[in-house]
Amino acid sequence: MISFENDYIAGAHPLVLNRLVETNLENLSGYGSDPYSERAKEKIKRACQCPAAQVELLVGGTQTNLIVISTMLHDHEGVIAAQTGHINVHEAGAIEYTGHKVLALPHTDGKLDPKVLEKYLGDFYADETCTHMVFPGMVYISQPTEYGTLYTLNELTQLSKLCHSCHIPLYLDGARLAYGLMSQETDVTLPDIARLCDVFYIGGTKAGALCGEAVVFTGTKRPEHFITSVKRRGALLAKGRLTGVQFDALFSKDLYFQIGRHAILMAEKLKTIFHQKGIPFYLESPTNQQFVILDNVQMEKLRQQVCFSFWEKYDDNHTVVRFVTSWSTTEDDLKKLELILPEL
Amino acid sequence: MISFENDYIAGAHPLVLNRLVETNLENLSGYGSDPYSERAKEKIKRACQCPAAQVELLVGGTQTNLIVISTMLHDHEGVIAAQTGHINVHEAGAIEYTGHKVLALPHTDGKLDPKVLEKYLGDFYADETCTHMVFPGMVYISQPTEYGTLYTLNELTQLSKLCHSCHIPLYLDGARLAYGLMSQETDVTLPDIARLCDVFYIGGTKAGALCGEAVVFTGTKRPEHFITSVKRRGALLAKGRLTGVQFDALFSKDLYFQIGRHAILMAEKLKTIFHQKGIPFYLESPTNQQFVILDNVQMEKLRQQVCFSFWEKYDDNHTVVRFVTSWSTTEDDLKKLELILPEL
Amino acid sequence: MISFENDYIAGAHPLVLNRLVETNLENLSGYGSDPYSERAKEKIKRACQCPAAQVELLVGGTQTNLIVISTMLHDHEGVIAAQTGHINVHEAGAIEYTGHKVLALPHTDGKLDPKVLEKYLGDFYADETCTHMVFPGMVYISQPTEYGTLYTLNELTQLSKLCHSCHIPLYLDGARLAYGLMSQETDVTLPDIARLCDVFYIGGTKAGALCGEAVVFTGTKRPEHFITSVKRRGALLAKGRLTGVQFDALFSKDLYFQIGRHAILMAEKLKTIFHQKGIPFYLESPTNQQFVILDNVQMEKLRQQVCFSFWEKYDDNHTVVRFVTSWSTTEDDLKKLELILPEL
Amino acid sequence: MISFENDYIAGAHPLVLNRLVETNLENLSGYGSDPYSERAKEKIKRACQCPAAQVELLVGGTQTNLIVISTMLHDHEGVIAAQTGHINVHEAGAIEYTGHKVLALPHTDGKLDPKVLEKYLGDFYADETCTHMVFPGMVYISQPTEYGTLYTLNELTQLSKLCHSCHIPLYLDGARLAYGLMSQETDVTLPDIARLCDVFYIGGTKAGALCGEAVVFTGTKRPEHFITSVKRRGALLAKGRLTGVQFDALFSKDLYFQIGRHAILMAEKLKTIFHQKGIPFYLESPTNQQFVILDNVQMEKLRQQVCFSFWEKYDDNHTVVRFVTSWSTTEDDLKKLELILPEL
Repeated sequence: MISFENDYIAGAHPLVLNRLVETNLENLSGYGSDPYSERAKEKIKRACQCPAAQVELLVGGTQTNLIVISTMLHDHEGVIAAQTGHINVHEAGAIEYTGHKVLALPHTDGKLDPKVLEKYLGDFYADETCTHMVFPGMVYISQPTEYGTLYTLNELTQLSKLCHSCHIPLYLDGARLAYGLMSQETDVTLPDIARLCDVFYIGGTKAGALCGEAVVFTGTKRPEHFITSVKRRGALLAKGRLTGVQFDALFSKDLYFQIGRHAILMAEKLKTIFHQKGIPFYLESPTNQQFVILDNVQMEKLRQQVCFSFWEKYDDNHTVVRFVTSWSTTEDDLKKLELILPEL
Repeated sequence: MISFENDYIAGAHPLVLNRLVETNLENLSGYGSDPYSERAKEKIKRACQCPAAQVELLVGGTQTNLIVISTMLHDHEGVIAAQTGHINVHEAGAIEYTGHKVLALPHTDGKLDPKVLEKYLGDFYADETCTHMVFPGMVYISQPTEYGTLYTLNELTQLSKLCHSCHIPLYLDGARLAYGLMSQETDVTLPDIARLCDVFYIGGTKAGALCGEAVVFTGTKRPEHFITSVKRRGALLAKGRLTGVQFDALFSKDLYFQIGRHAILMAEKLKTIFHQKGIPFYLESPTNQQFVILDNVQMEKLRQQVCFSFWEKYDDNHTVVRFVTSWSTTEDDLKKLELILPEL
Repeated sequence: MISFENDYIAGAHPLVLNRLVETNLENLSGYGSDPYSERAKEKIKRACQCPAAQVELLVGGTQTNLIVISTMLHDHEGVIAAQTGHINVHEAGAIEYTGHKVLALPHTDGKLDPKVLEKYLGDFYADETCTHMVFPGMVYISQPTEYGTLYTLNELTQLSKLCHSCHIPLYLDGARLAYGLMSQETDVTLPDIARLCDVFYIGGTKAGALCGEAVVFTGTKRPEHFITSVKRRGALLAKGRLTGVQFDALFSKDLYFQIGRHAILMAEKLKTIFHQKGIPFYLESPTNQQFVILDNVQMEKLRQQVCFSFWEKYDDNHTVVRFVTSWSTTEDDLKKLELILPEL
Repeated sequence: MISFENDYIAGAHPLVLNRLVETNLENLSGYGSDPYSERAKEKIKRACQCPAAQVELLVGGTQTNLIVISTMLHDHEGVIAAQTGHINVHEAGAIEYTGHKVLALPHTDGKLDPKVLEKYLGDFYADETCTHMVFPGMVYISQPTEYGTLYTLNELTQLSKLCHSCHIPLYLDGARLAYGLMSQETDVTLPDIARLCDVFYIGGTKAGALCGEAVVFTGTKRPEHFITSVKRRGALLAKGRLTGVQFDALFSKDLYFQIGRHAILMAEKLKTIFHQKGIPFYLESPTNQQFVILDNVQMEKLRQQVCFSFWEKYDDNHTVVRFVTSWSTTEDDLKKLELILPEL
């Protein structure tokens, strides 16, 4: 059955897996002190045009979010996020498990509006009772957002300025960054992100790795004794080579960007198919996630031939569903979908 | 200077303080195992008409909230509260410090609407991704709310039913319960609360004690090894007599209710004064907190003669301020205020 | 029944209680911003000869330990303590509840030997795997210790030097500091402690207050946003006057030291009585806690007329028990004990 | 350079890696709901002869320990371990990060003596102040231990009985279980472990997987909502297939046990070589870790040709070092070592 369920339905991109096979029998030191991890970090710094950055490799997205946030926040601080932010909804309270509040603000298509942030920060510091409240200690955004939408360079710049005027870091969750960077509608580059954010991560799991996320600390605020903090959150891989080799492969010969480009191409074709069939969009995104509205009868029938995911109820007779493309989506998948999809 | 700043501006009610003085030199066991603590607990159970209840005495409100919530929630659960709930705004992230999320829902004048709760619970369990989300594990309400408003018996009954249909406890924060119970507009009694809530606390600090809150577990879900859990949160008083003697006094000869009645009487007179002077209400509550709108010039002048508290900006020229009565408010205070307040 | 059970069997010292009564009806601001709290802090700084110190008032000892330790440690650090340290044994895991390990080292009569500490620190930094271990981030000692013993000025100086050579703070738990400072065998003064420790607390609960401990930060490492951190651990008193007034009284007219002196005088007489009766000491301390060995038959008989506390089994027929004096111990209590105690 | 540094110097066992390659392009559901994970769990239950067990796949050892322990302990409880236990020394305080104390008891060659445990438990419940202490809520042991030693069936049975008499679970850390089960000196089988322990894990990372540990809950005490608890600790793999496929391979055709057998065979030959060369053992273990004493000059020379790990200083001129074998150790490695090692 063809699947548009998400961007982690397949294993690793063949070029990534191949490197794991080729290096498998080498004797390497553990805990990320192997040469592949080193090489991966160097390549990432170069791609970010940020030679002073500190790069760390972790296993998964929620893990990365909780480690970055809990090691950078002070005791009295919480992290600001859009109400739809992954850390606020779909991480089962991982941030709170580390003792910190997610300060959820209203969103616009999954994005945190700089004006909303500005008002919140202004009101907070003007409140006489603020010592009894959670201090804003970081701003979390995701690029692309959970709705596949993108911040513009202008918006990112504004958010960055606001954060820096309050002396708090801006953190960007790049679980799907490959697809954001390669979107046809973006004006934001990886070096832009490295310049404007204090810390961000480059997602591997959703972009062709078996697992792995690369955190990039670009600023001067960096957690000290990071390895120990990672260890005590149960996140230190004994065989650090597993993420090292994979990110070394992803950042060799432009692979990470190729993966993004391919998925975007597939997403554009997918959008065209939906338009041709007259299927209404709930949110037509510039990245690899597309949200369409199906009537419930239609949806049930479709489900027998295609995998996609339920997003939310639209009304009593309609449902919002999500279709996702990735490096593993093929032209053939799209052709099959086109044949299966009903004309409306 | 006369003060309506809050309901904890004075020390203890004289009858409470007197008991501390009378018992001061008695040799008593520590950690709440003294006879006064025992007697206080028995009197509270009687007042609640709930002989099977378990009563525990703690020191402060935030402390009580964090202990009750963190000992009753399971690992995967969070606590639902109105967005304006004390635990969500003014406890500096105390609940999150224990590892749990506050699931904030929209409010109506500080109250959690049963319909809003019902929809939230329905949507949650219908969501296929709910294993990646924080489970609702408790509902927190305050009576009176942070805006001085009150749940009706009907609303409390609905909330209670909703909680029980989902097998989660209903927890009522009664920091100002004395004023809620004695409001002229309430149809809710202390036994009603004991019957409808699984756990609640009877606030002492804001009702005539130097410190102290009495938690009442009415249901079958009770934290085991409570003393140890209290100890490890740094909340166990060596001289447990301090809260024991005070609650014994508060629940002797109807004192707790008298304290509530007096403050309500003072609040009603306060409301009349505001009406006579033509000062607009932001929220005219049935309890001991009143919210009025002052123009900023007026406010600054008033501040030199009366203490009250800033609530929030109303518009560029006006401010919402709060006036609070308590057991220590006197007729004389009101007369002085009447003379000071400008005619509008 | 006469009682030597502990030093918190009675309420407050009459001079302390009296001040609570005298100030009871004053309208004061909450959360420690009242003038009595300010005055208490100033007096404490003066007594410590440390005008640059930051003094904070809290409610209880375990609470103080967990707040000081958790706000001063970094994420990757734990706190070193003697195996018998209060935080390691009798605080129900309060430090661990804040996420940090107690690194327990062997003790000598309740004391941490500077040589033991030196070896531990040396070994730790020499260990190649130390990034996988909890870093020593603070040294906790108690003065007097849980066994009533005292560090000498020389020992304190050595511990202080060791800490500073590793850039970690030295923290002294002074729950019973009054009795340590007034011991006939000590060469350590309050200013010595303020000079050698980075942070310590002056215990009120066990020295004549109803509750209250005064934390003194003497060094440059101080938790920022302390009020917010205190609030989120549920430890901020709404009526901050409760501790403010009490410490103001304790540090007026030498009262704190008088309380200590009286208890020490009583303890010396107690020791004489035990010696005269031929009752063997398990540990004859220079402070207000004395540990003697009773045979079990003797102990059971004695228990019917005197309160004291079980310490530990000595052998199958004997038990170590503890007798404690305090400000509330009277000459009369001692005379009665003398009459009751059997001749051995 | 030949390496005996540890048992995770190489990638995956070729048969394991091969399965990852073969299944790489299949579209599979995420988060462990794929058929390979299911199959792996079934095979593990069969190997344990425990059809009622619940098996869960996680990524690493520290992660597994913290998840199992923190989800099974109650609020007031800690976990008992030998002082040398991995959770007490080399997990950077991961257990404490979850809020729980490790109750460290003296060890014998890395093992927890049932007699030591019995005395501890007896003393704890006899202590009148135990409500102020951390309750023992679980016993943690490792098999093999951190010193490569093994519990006998008799010892395991005694520990199990002691735990069950106190109604607390026995948890066995099997990071290197393959080597324990295949030791020539053990009388303990996998079904024995499943019968005697309430929960244990079968280590993959140190036995031929790239990563992965399989937790087996055998008893009636099982954490509910385990997925959510795993998610909120950042430990849920999006591509659950990664561990599923690997454990499916490890428990196919006896591979897990073959891996253990091979490493044991290599370890026995290694021991012979050391004996022949007259190199003294610090601890000659029955499993895959061997501890020998080298003089420091010898050690430095050897280091240039062989990888091994520093264990601890023996005296000023000697050092304890560790040699480890694994599935990737070859006869050739041993021959080379034999040639390199000096005759003593």
